[in-house]
Amino acid sequence: MLRLFYAPATCALATHIALIEAGADYDLIRLSFAAEDQRKPAFLAINPKGRVPALVTEQGVLTETPALLAYVAQRYPAARLAPFDDAFALARVQAFNSYLCATLHVAHSHRMRGYRWADEPDAILAMQRKVPASVSQCFEVVERELTGPWVMGGAYTICDPYLFTLAQWMEADGVDTDRFPNVIAHRRRCAERAAVQRALAEESGMA
Amino acid sequence: MLRLFYAPATCALATHIALIEAGADYDLIRLSFAAEDQRKPAFLAINPKGRVPALVTEQGVLTETPALLAYVAQRYPAARLAPFDDAFALARVQAFNSYLCATLHVAHSHRMRGYRWADEPDAILAMQRKVPASVSQCFEVVERELTGPWVMGGAYTICDPYLFTLAQWMEADGVDTDRFPNVIAHRRRCAERAAVQRALAEESGMA
Ligand SMILES: N[C@@H](CCC(=O)N[C@@H](CS)C(=O)NCC(=O)O)C(=O)O
Ligand SMILES: N[C@@H](CCC(=O)N[C@@H](CS)C(=O)NCC(=O)O)C(=O)O
Repeated sequence: MLRLFYAPATCALATHIALIEAGADYDLIRLSFAAEDQRKPAFLAINPKGRVPALVTEQGVLTETPALLAYVAQRYPAARLAPFDDAFALARVQAFNSYLCATLHVAHSHRMRGYRWADEPDAILAMQRKVPASVSQCFEVVERELTGPWVMGGAYTICDPYLFTLAQWMEADGVDTDRFPNVIAHRRRCAERAAVQRALAEESGMA
Repeated sequence: MLRLFYAPATCALATHIALIEAGADYDLIRLSFAAEDQRKPAFLAINPKGRVPALVTEQGVLTETPALLAYVAQRYPAARLAPFDDAFALARVQAFNSYLCATLHVAHSHRMRGYRWADEPDAILAMQRKVPASVSQCFEVVERELTGPWVMGGAYTICDPYLFTLAQWMEADGVDTDRFPNVIAHRRRCAERAAVQRALAEESGMA
């Protein structure tokens, strides 16, 4: 049985949704960032990086959202969440997810986690001021690529729950959503899926 | 024929090495960052993100180092550069590469590309001051995981050229290499490979 360590409203939601879409059996373990659970020895023994998501499998612990999403897709091939039989198509999926992870998510992180990259309070404030612009620039890249209904076109893949997850943060990041109609239509389309509704309900403790 | 857009001494070196290890046929197209080639219309038509690497395939352009590395491994299976038949082992490879891309490389980028995340010159200087500490913290994660001879243990994979590439920057980032004997031993081991020597020679125009 898989066991997903998550905190509410984080990037762990992407893997959570993918597990449901895949029809996987899983346990959810909730961390509280308010209580700094991610820095406690019990969790550092699971993931020394002190971040969510972490997925405990029968063979060991896995981390990093793009890796977890591809793992879920490969482990549950019947759900067809990634084109593992087509190297080019798979690389497009991976390129999209890598961009979300390394560029879009990281731009967002400068709002709440600026201390990772500078010590001075003024510098941390300066980073926060730039988040609306830098995150918007990332969404411009995504907006251009989205022809819909899903990120890869006709087929729902592991790109979709990941984009949906990061698009939850647009308003709080000060992004003007009117500039990104394709992203917003995609977010709405995802929100209608049963798997997404179940994941959000489980996160909020209402399921 | 594959065509790799690169600039010298960038993360594109990882894909370049992997292409050689795989026995691929490829053309190299060199960009000059000094001339800002990456922001010119000719290159933006290839990669609108304005970054290297970009790999032109028969089916279209691919970007993002973790995606390119996995693509090369899957396209040239005889070179056994990634365990595509084992979901858990592949996820470990991808998790490692995702960490390099989204955390280690990004920490490094705060030295020369701070303007991505703040506008004020003082904030950009503050980011530069933290690079030795933040990059070192990432190498601590890597150092702990490296049991050798290669990142995944006995088998050379697409993790190895990627780590080798980012480890080129340690000294310039102000990292005290004495603290990372496993990383340095790995860097030396990689430097002895014919594929690495050929890639470096081609980059420098000496091949
Ligand atoms: N590259 C990792 C990033 C994971 C990450 O940064 N997760 C955040 C939540 S969205 C976290 O755990 N932050 C806690 C902290 O920084 O203390 C991934 O994509 O999974
Ligand atoms: N996530 C991308 C990052 C690519 C990237 O940032 N490349 C750098 C060179 S290491 C670049 O092209 N920088 C040019 C610029 O920012 O103008 C990847 O891993 O391929």
